[in-house]
Parts: sequence; structure tokens; C-alpha cells
Amino acid sequence: MTAIGFIGLGNMGGPMAANLAAAGHTVKVFDLVPDLMASVAGGIACSSALQAAQDVDVFVSMLPAGQHVRGLYLGNEQQPGLLSQMAASTLVIDCSTIDPASARAVGEAAGSLGIDMIDAPVSGGTAGAQNGTLTFIVGGSPNAFDRAEPVLSVMGANTFHAGGAGAGQVAKICNNMLLAILMSGTAEALSLGVDNGLDPAVLSEIMKVSSGGNWALNVYNPFPGVMEGVPASRGYEGGFLVDLMRKDLNLALQTAQASDSAIPLGGLANNLYQVHRQTHDAGRLDFSSIAWLYKPDLKK
Amino acid sequence: MTAIGFIGLGNMGGPMAANLAAAGHTVKVFDLVPDLMASVAGGIACSSALQAAQDVDVFVSMLPAGQHVRGLYLGNEQQPGLLSQMAASTLVIDCSTIDPASARAVGEAAGSLGIDMIDAPVSGGTAGAQNGTLTFIVGGSPNAFDRAEPVLSVMGANTFHAGGAGAGQVAKICNNMLLAILMSGTAEALSLGVDNGLDPAVLSEIMKVSSGGNWALNVYNPFPGVMEGVPASRGYEGGFLVDLMRKDLNLALQTAQASDSAIPLGGLANNLYQVHRQTHDAGRLDFSSIAWLYKPDLKK
Amino acid sequence: MTAIGFIGLGNMGGPMAANLAAAGHTVKVFDLVPDLMASVAGGIACSSALQAAQDVDVFVSMLPAGQHVRGLYLGNEQQPGLLSQMAASTLVIDCSTIDPASARAVGEAAGSLGIDMIDAPVSGGTAGAQNGTLTFIVGGSPNAFDRAEPVLSVMGANTFHAGGAGAGQVAKICNNMLLAILMSGTAEALSLGVDNGLDPAVLSEIMKVSSGGNWALNVYNPFPGVMEGVPASRGYEGGFLVDLMRKDLNLALQTAQASDSAIPLGGLANNLYQVHRQTHDAGRLDFSSIAWLYKPDLKK
Amino acid sequence: MTAIGFIGLGNMGGPMAANLAAAGHTVKVFDLVPDLMASVAGGIACSSALQAAQDVDVFVSMLPAGQHVRGLYLGNEQQPGLLSQMAASTLVIDCSTIDPASARAVGEAAGSLGIDMIDAPVSGGTAGAQNGTLTFIVGGSPNAFDRAEPVLSVMGANTFHAGGAGAGQVAKICNNMLLAILMSGTAEALSLGVDNGLDPAVLSEIMKVSSGGNWALNVYNPFPGVMEGVPASRGYEGGFLVDLMRKDLNLALQTAQASDSAIPLGGLANNLYQVHRQTHDAGRLDFSSIAWLYKPDLKK
Repeated sequence: MTAIGFIGLGNMGGPMAANLAAAGHTVKVFDLVPDLMASVAGGIACSSALQAAQDVDVFVSMLPAGQHVRGLYLGNEQQPGLLSQMAASTLVIDCSTIDPASARAVGEAAGSLGIDMIDAPVSGGTAGAQNGTLTFIVGGSPNAFDRAEPVLSVMGANTFHAGGAGAGQVAKICNNMLLAILMSGTAEALSLGVDNGLDPAVLSEIMKVSSGGNWALNVYNPFPGVMEGVPASRGYEGGFLVDLMRKDLNLALQTAQASDSAIPLGGLANNLYQVHRQTHDAGRLDFSSIAWLYKPDLKK
Repeated sequence: MTAIGFIGLGNMGGPMAANLAAAGHTVKVFDLVPDLMASVAGGIACSSALQAAQDVDVFVSMLPAGQHVRGLYLGNEQQPGLLSQMAASTLVIDCSTIDPASARAVGEAAGSLGIDMIDAPVSGGTAGAQNGTLTFIVGGSPNAFDRAEPVLSVMGANTFHAGGAGAGQVAKICNNMLLAILMSGTAEALSLGVDNGLDPAVLSEIMKVSSGGNWALNVYNPFPGVMEGVPASRGYEGGFLVDLMRKDLNLALQTAQASDSAIPLGGLANNLYQVHRQTHDAGRLDFSSIAWLYKPDLKK
Repeated sequence: MTAIGFIGLGNMGGPMAANLAAAGHTVKVFDLVPDLMASVAGGIACSSALQAAQDVDVFVSMLPAGQHVRGLYLGNEQQPGLLSQMAASTLVIDCSTIDPASARAVGEAAGSLGIDMIDAPVSGGTAGAQNGTLTFIVGGSPNAFDRAEPVLSVMGANTFHAGGAGAGQVAKICNNMLLAILMSGTAEALSLGVDNGLDPAVLSEIMKVSSGGNWALNVYNPFPGVMEGVPASRGYEGGFLVDLMRKDLNLALQTAQASDSAIPLGGLANNLYQVHRQTHDAGRLDFSSIAWLYKPDLKK
Repeated sequence: MTAIGFIGLGNMGGPMAANLAAAGHTVKVFDLVPDLMASVAGGIACSSALQAAQDVDVFVSMLPAGQHVRGLYLGNEQQPGLLSQMAASTLVIDCSTIDPASARAVGEAAGSLGIDMIDAPVSGGTAGAQNGTLTFIVGGSPNAFDRAEPVLSVMGANTFHAGGAGAGQVAKICNNMLLAILMSGTAEALSLGVDNGLDPAVLSEIMKVSSGGNWALNVYNPFPGVMEGVPASRGYEGGFLVDLMRKDLNLALQTAQASDSAIPLGGLANNLYQVHRQTHDAGRLDFSSIAWLYKPDLKK
């Protein structure tokens, strides 16, 4: 049994903390919204992040953006940073999806204090958080990664080690930028086929087993009626929301700026998603609804 | 045993005709270049396309572009069209990769004469042609498709029926446009990761089993040293040449123009390939060399 | 006084022919639609294109696409070409906007028969055609250009000599592709400013006299209320229709394909226009309505 | 005569401060690099930014990025902010080109202390700084703008008032994003013409007086030999460097992210510039060298 502190108890963090408690761990929780603490079955509510971070073996955070993670661990004008107030033996796991520069800055600050820390952004959505089937992509030292595995395996089904501090964020961002390209490209190819008389299901079957095969086409077809159980076949109800994809694409743009990398397709996909979002008020729809931009008549 | 006429005996057509002869069929061949006729083992050289098209059960063509296919079958100022001089019982198989409008025009002209015709563009390259492992994507009537299968199965390993006349061309064009997007997008995501400190092999492994998985990443990695046996690991020697990918992308643009379809990602991929081609003199390199545009230091 | 034949009497050709007649020339007209012949004040209706092309000093054509121009001058299965039936002394002026390859083919065929011919696509719209204020961009020999000037100056206000056969088409296509980029880019920059709190009129004034100055911004502002008398200030009623801009952009794509040129911005602009067109049913609106794609609330 | 504090004495700030001193003002200067202080003719070197900001009527800053401007005026862990230590009567002029969010944050903090402040990013380059012919685009209250004019008019030739705090940054960013599009688009249109046989000078003349006319074409032609005195005619020696254009395009991307705006053409132009930069090692060349991406043989 491990003593775990957990802060950030939203749609993702709440069920993740509950799964840790259900596995028999002692879980001290904190969130700025008191009701969220009460909703974590088995959690022990704390009065501050600092309280949740003390006398624990492992500390987990799940926050919205880089500025929150920096503020929490490194401090700001309102508060000193947690890292300077933690036991050096604490293993720190940040599950937030944030810019790699922030993840690196916090990870390196932890390292200089002798604290093992990993960045471990997740994929798998709220269903994955509830069912404990998330995927974690981890940046940090091999030792920190090994220490974290038993805890991550309670919350998730797959864990990858991408490299040193910040590498988890980089790998997730690269993957999701590629996913946006795959989804837009698949919608584009299917629309071109349909506009020229093909049945989208027949074309999908052909491309799946040809060199056009990809995750979006193979398991998440964006055309209604081609595949059962996907958002496209239930009115594009999410799923993975357009707003969340745009958050990840914006992180990709920031990451590319920081490293002076060219991302013409990722940049175009981001703009197509923004045009789609503002034209069709699509922020809360599944990201496969990008098909509407190519075939407006798919919109009911 | 079937009597087959075959015209167009280049890198692809030559071995395809030879495979038909090796399977025991009578194969009458014609090409404007006499040496190419001599090189088809077991082929019977003819003095004209017309001679090759007479007294045969099946007639196969493998030509460079739509204008040649139109000229051959529908005629032009130099010659009358073959369709009007063939027995109506002949099954016509055009294996050329051409614009769908030409394929439809020729297919419909055949239909009006009571001739079964399919468009059956191939993928699999010269190795597939030699080994009889090509993939055919077929447009035409179900009956014509059924009649063609025994002949196609000698030359290839996979056969798909995409729809009516021209549908084979449309499906191949859609697939290859998507492939260009997958390859460019994969090179782009890997470059972004590498620019931010990741190992391309590690990042590839993670994305392959995540939502970034796609044909280019999974079996044709564009970064040198990640995967054995692919062009990237032998100096980008082809493979599938940049010039051929651009031919298919140009067909995609023509097809999109004809149907007033939006193809922003396919259009951008085409322009990235052209910038790559003219900057790096890359027309005769494998199409995975697009990685050079993102990471110039991959170029030796 | 000159004897002139004129075929193609639509929204553009009709008023152009009438202006020639009004200037005192003898104008023999032909169109497949008889009513259009009747509507040309002062025109002499003919029973065929051939009749209109005989016994004239100058022959003018205004047709929709390259295939029509090729068919008319070079012939097809339905008819022999006009060039072979004309007096060699006739000056031929093709005012159609078509692909440069067709223009070159026809121009060179004329040259081989000793006939002076120019391609002279126009800009200025139906108002320019009616008022005789069109702009002609001319391809052809200096001598043919000089011979044509007196006739062109009746129909237009500006005449440019771009080069040899086909050069008029190339220059017009390059200009209009650039115009599409200017208009989209201007709408994009203004939208970015407005989204960040700026007044579009103030921002326009600043950019006009700065390095952002361009024709679209300076005389054809795409934001409603910034400039009087432009389509944006009257509900985007044309003006220069989205459908016509897309025709010219498609010609640009064909031209770039023929010369293996990279046109990433022109290609993207074309796709943005197509997304706009199909999303907003905007084909018959002025091309400055592309602003809707950036700011959906500009749409009433 | 006015007492002026000035910090940031690089290639731009140094000559600007010297011009103020030459006009008879008392100019107290500070830079972290002591030699730069010595190089400002007539400047009075200070030992800190704070010293330069005290007992002056006007305070001017010229710094590289938003974080520096925030740090200087609002403070950070190293130092308290200048705003809290200045006389409320001081007029603050920040000439840095930075993200609008930082400019707004600093401008609003000044306002809450009763300090008049403007953001006044410049264009015109080092030559403009030396000759006092810069253009200032100003954000801030009308009153602050009026107070600043006499000082700005010493350093520059043109001053525009774009709106409230941050509006100067927004307007400059919009203008320069549009400029990148104009320059790339012009190089693209000229290359398409040249690839199809046109003379770039002839095509330029035609488009300048047609609807393709724009600042890049009209006064800064990117093709060598077309126009005298521009970077293209002296090996693309700057001029306005590719690296500086990319800095401004990155600010445009950040601004678009903050306001959820679509900038497909600006985003693509940014990526084309990055491909050009890394392929041709072009960061220190004038930004019109983007023509190399379209016509590699323009590179010597």
C-alpha cells in the first residue's frame, strides 16, 4: 500500500484518483473546487495542495496548462513552489498535457533537488480514466519510470517511455498532430471518392488494406454509416472533442516554434479545424466531424 | 487456355505479359518499341495494336496517360479506335493509371458496343509486376469484374472491385493521395519529435501502437535506421519514385477539379513534393525522401 | 472601317461586338444561340462560324474553355478547323480565358499557316465589356500585337503585350492567382486584427500605406462598411464571382502541372475558395466574400 | 527640451536614442552591455534601468521579447517592476515588437497606476532608425498618443494610432503577416510565369498595374534584375531578414492562438519560410529570398 497525493480532480483526474483508492492505496486529494474532492470515492480531502503533497510516497497532478504546472511546482507570486516543500523521496507524476518547455523546466528543477519526477500525459479520454485503461506516454529517467509503473498500471493499460524530462509531452504532441493529419486526410480522400461516385464503405475497405491504411480510417471512420460504434455514426457526439484536438495542435505549434521546426501539414490541419469549429460551432463535437468541411451535406 | 492480346510492354507491362504467357496462355503482344516485344518470354509479336486485339478472348493495355488510352480505344486523327474493330465478346482490361474521366469515357463507349471493359490500375511496382503480386483496383460491371478475375489473379495477388466504369481509377487516386499525406505527415511528426530530443525509433514505436499508426509509419518508415529493408535505410533508392507520386497527385488534382472537391491537404502535399523534387533533384528517389524537406541533415 | 467576324456572344462577347459595330465597323456575328445574335446592335447575323470568318479582316472569338477554342480553330470530329478555311491575311484575336497549352497550340497552328493570331484574355467584367474599358493581356508576335491594337482599343482601355503565343493566358492566370492570394490574405489579416480588438477601417488605413498594401486592400476591401461602392458593402453581390475566380485558379493549377511549378499558396487559396463555396453556397457571390470563411458572423 | 530615459541600445535602439540626443533632449541611457551605452552619442550612461527611469519626462524601451518587457515593467523574481518605481507623470513608450498579450498586460498595469503608456512597435529597419525615418504603429489612449507624438516624430517619419493598449502590436503583426503572404505570393506568381516562358520584368509590369499589384511586387521585387536597389538585385543581402520575418510570423501564430483565429495562409507562409531557412541556411538573408524555394536556380 502506497500513500499518494493527487491534485486536479476534474473529468480525468477524479476517476484516476478513485481508481488508485479502489486499489487499496491511501489517496489524499485536493482541488480548488471542494465538491470535486467529495466526489472521489475513498479519497481523503485536504485543505491545500501542500497538505496533499506531504507524508506521501507518490504525488500526482492533473492540471489544464503549463502555467498551472509551473505555478504549482515552481511557485509564483501567490505561493512558493511545492518542489521545495516536498520530501526528496517523493515520486512526482505530472499527468497534465502541457508544453514540453514547461515540463522540462519543472522536471529539471525536481532533478536538481534530487526528486524523481516524470511527465506522463495520458490518452484514452474519460472512459479510459474511469475504466483504468488509459495510455501513459512518459518522460523522465529510467529509474523514475520504473518507480512509476506500479502506480500508472492501476490507472492505465499501456505505458511508454519516450525519453528524458519533457519527452512524454513531445511524444504525445507529435502523435496527436499526426492524428489530426490522418483524420483530415482520411475525410478528404473519402470525400474525393464519394464526389466521384464511390461508396464510402467500399472505398474504406479498399484503402484499409492498401497503403492508405491508418488509425482514423481503420477504427474511427469519419463518414456516417461506414462503421458502427464510432462518433460519425451517432451524430459526431464525442469522442475526442474538436476543442481538445485544437488544444493539442496549439501545443504542437508552440513546440515547433520552440525548436524552429516546419510543420506545414499540422499547421494546415489546425487551421482547417479552426475554420470547421467556427463555421459549424463544432468545438464540442467529435474531431471526426471535420468531414463536414469536405462534405457539408453530412451535416444534418 | 485463353488467347490474350497485350499492348504497352514497359517496366510494368512487360513482366505482366510474360507472367500470362508463363501461365500457359497465348499472348499476342505489341509495343511501338520492337525490342520490348522481343523481351517478353513466350509472347507473340504483332505488327500493330489492331492485330494484337483480333482473335483474342481478352485484351490488356498498360499505357502512360489518359490521352493514350483514349487514342487507342476511341481513335484520333491518326487512327480509328480499337473498340470499333474488336469482337464484342472480347473482355478489355485497361491497367493504365489515368484520369477517371478518360476511363469513364472509354468504359462507356465499350458498354455501348456491348463490350465488357474494366479499368484496373495496379499498385505494387515493378517487383510486384515481376512476381505476380500486384494489387488491382477495378472499375466496371460485376460481370466484367468476374470475367477478369482469372486473368488478374495470374498477374496479381489482390483484386478489389471499387464500382462502375472509372471507379478503379478513382479509388487508386484517393488511396495514393492519402498515402502522400500519410508519408509527409509521418515525416513531419517524426521530425518534430527529433527536433525536440526524441529518438525517431522510440517515437515510431510509440505512435505505431497509438492513434498515429499508419501504413507509412508502420511498414515504410521515412527516417534512416529505424526500419530495415525500406528505402530510407538504403539512401532512399526506390521504391516508389517521387515522380510517380507526383503523377498520381496531379491526377488527384484533376479529379478534384472535375468534381469541385476540396483537397487542401492533398494539394499541399503535392506542392511539398514539388518543392522537394526541385530543391533536391529528387524525382528519381523514393517518395519517403520527403523527410529531407523537414530535416535537411538527413541528406548525405 | 474594318470587316470583323465575332463569335461567342454571351455576357462579355455580346457587348464587345456591339462596341465594335458602334465604332463603325462591319461586324458579322455568330453564336449557337440565335437570340444572342439578335441582341447585338448593329451586328450582322451569320449562319455559321465559318461564314462569320470569311471575307473579314479581323476575326474575334470569346469562348468558355480551351476545348472550344481548339475545336473551333483546329477542328474535331464534328467539323474541320477554321484556320484551314480562313484567308491567311485575317488577323485572329481569341479573347477567351483558357489554358496556355491550348492557346499555344492554336497560336502555333495559325503561325504555320501564315496567319497572325493573338491570345488576348480580358479582365474588367461585364461592366468593362459594356463600357469599352476592358484590359487585354496579349500573347503573340509584336506584329500581330500592333495590328490588333486599333481593334482592342475600341473594346478596352488598356492593352499589355506579355510575350509570344499563349503568354497572354499565362500572364492573366498568374495575375489572378496572385489576386486570390491577395484577397484571402487581406481578409485573413483583417480578421486577425478584428479578433484582437482592432477596427477594420483603422487597420486597413494603416496597412494600405505600409508594406501590407495591395490591390484587394486598397480598392476592394472585403470587410463590410470599410469602403463604399465595393461588393463587401452591398452584401457581396458581384463583382467578380467566386465561380469565376475558381475557374481561373483551376487554370493556374493546370498551368503549374504542365510546367511542374510549385504553387502552395495558390493551391491553398483555391481550396479555401472551394470550402467557402460549398459551405456558404457562395459560387455566385463576389470573391471578396471569402471573408466569411474567416469571420462567419459577417454572413448575415 | 525633455528629459528622456532609454533602455535597450542595440542596432535599433542605439541610433534611436542618439537621434533624441541630437535633437537636444537630455537622454539617460542604459543597457546590460556597457559598450552599447558608450556608443550613443550624447547619451548619459546610467548604472541601472531604474536610474534611467527616474527624473525623466519620457521613458523609452526597445527590448527583444514579451518576457523582457514584462520583466522590466512588472518585475520578476530578480527585480521589482519599474512601473511601481516611476513617477506617475512619466510617459512610457515601449518600442519593442512583442506579443499583444504582454503589451496589454503592461499597458493595463501602467493605466492602473495612472501612468500614460503606449506600445509603439516600429518598422523601417536599421536604416530607418539611423535616419529617423521609422514608422511607429501605436496602441494606447488618445491622450498618451498625443503626448508621444513629439518624441516619436524625432525618431520617425510616420505615426499611426491603431487603438488601445496592445493595438500597436496587433496592427504591426497583422501587417507583417500580410507582407509575408504578399512576398511569397508574388514570388510564386512570378515563378509560375517564368516557368511558362514569361519575362519576369514584363510580367511584373503587367501585374503592378493590374489587380495583382502589391507592395512586394511594386517596390521590392523578389526576382533578380527586375528592379534596381532591392535586395534581390544584390544577392538578397538584407534588407529585412528571414529570421526577423519568422519572429513576426511566430508572433502572428501566438496572436491567432490567443484569439482562436484561422490564419491558413499566414501559417503556410511561416512554414514555407522555415523550409526555406533550413534548406538554404537563409536566416540572415533578406526575406525576398523566398523566391529560391520556387526557383532553386535563382540561388547562385
